[in-house]
Amino acid sequence: MDKHNGYGNAGMGFIDGAYTPVSEMRIPVTDMGFQLGDMCYDAIHVHKGSFFRLKDHLDRWENSIRERRYTTLDFDRDQVAEILNGCVARGGLKDSMITFVATRGSPSTAHKDLRTCNNRFMVWALPYYKVFSDEEERTGSDIVIADTIRIPPESVDPRVKNFGRLDFVRALFEAYDRDSKYAVLLDREDNVTEGRGWNVFALRGGVLMSPDSGVLEGITRRTVVELSEKLNIECRLTKVPATTLRDADEVFITSTAGGIMPVRSIDKKPVGDGAPGPVTTRLIDLYWKLHEDPAYSTPVRYDVAAAAAE
Amino acid sequence: MDKHNGYGNAGMGFIDGAYTPVSEMRIPVTDMGFQLGDMCYDAIHVHKGSFFRLKDHLDRWENSIRERRYTTLDFDRDQVAEILNGCVARGGLKDSMITFVATRGSPSTAHKDLRTCNNRFMVWALPYYKVFSDEEERTGSDIVIADTIRIPPESVDPRVKNFGRLDFVRALFEAYDRDSKYAVLLDREDNVTEGRGWNVFALRGGVLMSPDSGVLEGITRRTVVELSEKLNIECRLTKVPATTLRDADEVFITSTAGGIMPVRSIDKKPVGDGAPGPVTTRLIDLYWKLHEDPAYSTPVRYDVAAAAAE
Repeated sequence: MDKHNGYGNAGMGFIDGAYTPVSEMRIPVTDMGFQLGDMCYDAIHVHKGSFFRLKDHLDRWENSIRERRYTTLDFDRDQVAEILNGCVARGGLKDSMITFVATRGSPSTAHKDLRTCNNRFMVWALPYYKVFSDEEERTGSDIVIADTIRIPPESVDPRVKNFGRLDFVRALFEAYDRDSKYAVLLDREDNVTEGRGWNVFALRGGVLMSPDSGVLEGITRRTVVELSEKLNIECRLTKVPATTLRDADEVFITSTAGGIMPVRSIDKKPVGDGAPGPVTTRLIDLYWKLHEDPAYSTPVRYDVAAAAAE
Repeated sequence: MDKHNGYGNAGMGFIDGAYTPVSEMRIPVTDMGFQLGDMCYDAIHVHKGSFFRLKDHLDRWENSIRERRYTTLDFDRDQVAEILNGCVARGGLKDSMITFVATRGSPSTAHKDLRTCNNRFMVWALPYYKVFSDEEERTGSDIVIADTIRIPPESVDPRVKNFGRLDFVRALFEAYDRDSKYAVLLDREDNVTEGRGWNVFALRGGVLMSPDSGVLEGITRRTVVELSEKLNIECRLTKVPATTLRDADEVFITSTAGGIMPVRSIDKKPVGDGAPGPVTTRLIDLYWKLHEDPAYSTPVRYDVAAAAAE
């Protein structure tokens, strides 16, 4: 009985030391990455044959590995970069989303002392995809503010990107029940945090705002901060009350999976005039142009695939 | 490169419709049970050839499945019970810990709409093991109160048993750093919650106390409540401040993996006189005697293994 579905049917990955089609990638159920959610990951994209902000993603990755105390990973920064390249090249992907993951691994006994585990490294490179559909990216998407509270930083550090997302799961079903597909979560003081895999920005009175804490420090979020500076738009990383989001002139989300994507309604109330606003549109344009800047892009070396096939 | 370790080398499991040795059980990386921690599970034990409180575990399981809205699991209560039996019988296990898991499954596209997933069911039955080592069970164990705060119920419902345990992971490393192997977590009001896979009880002034909310409603915890009644010991499920735990006369933890197990020190300060107390010892004795009561035990049908082998 194959319960596999369509996601992951294309793409190339790497696990347990070998390149493997994503559709065949499996991890042992004994890995604490599954049984405790004891893992961390990063996600990067390739646009027109080049990685975007590779150095920044690897910096964040290394920080996550250190925070999790994964000391038996066996793959250093350069090796990780080489394997990311290897997956994209072997997959023949010109535009790709690449997820790279470290797990605690399997312990030596059922006592599950985490210090006895051998960490595991894996990567999957898929054809590029976006959080929003093509139509939603054009017209803006409808999101809800969930009642479910984001897991607080005192419990789990959101800056170490991880799959422990049962809060998002609950929030997504709230969204589904309210004719939406996307939910943003608040903290318990009613401040905005983030959605599943994305940060959020609100423009109000000419000032851009995005949550300063309790969220992943997204690379696309950082790019927006930098682009705002170029545009002479004031951009603050600060507490963002839910009311600010509800009353914003423009709202957009940011993610490696899609870049900058407009939101047209929150809890069924239109944002601004209910269409992507001028600042959002301008930023989207600049974001994709930035991909042509050699300072931000690292060409994929596709020749490694041919060399491996010989 | 096989990074598998010792845990799971023995035992029999079931995944994707087939009985499989636990050491070979793997799940696709595309399963949201891994990528979002979107799963739930239960754990039950077999003692001297009989399941303990099977009905209660299946009741809790069914509640978890309903809460997660797993509507495409394909295995109903009776089939689940049959497969639990099948794993134990085929593993030839007279004393066993059995974990049974449902995951969301893999979505149809990278957009990851959770409503497009086919839920997955799996089981692993291992030789019986306990949270504490044999020596710790005899002498009592040393635990710490972690600074990490338990993920709150407003974010993730702890009554739906799950692997989203990065808060426990962080707390365990706090314990390791303080010469302990076990950590109990507080909520943000400094009330006791639980440890990784166990509830906790404090006896003070002749009254037993255990947290009433923000914790898994453990079957062993329930058993202790029922046994206290038989012993005419007052037992309250209530808020338990950290100070109550620190000042208790006796402290023990409860888990399907080990039953009732004494704690001899908290943050290096002895509990009572630093040895298992009389109430704890009495409860341990009654707990294991209860396994002989037919009202609580369901004999494993080992003949299914022989029939399957013919």
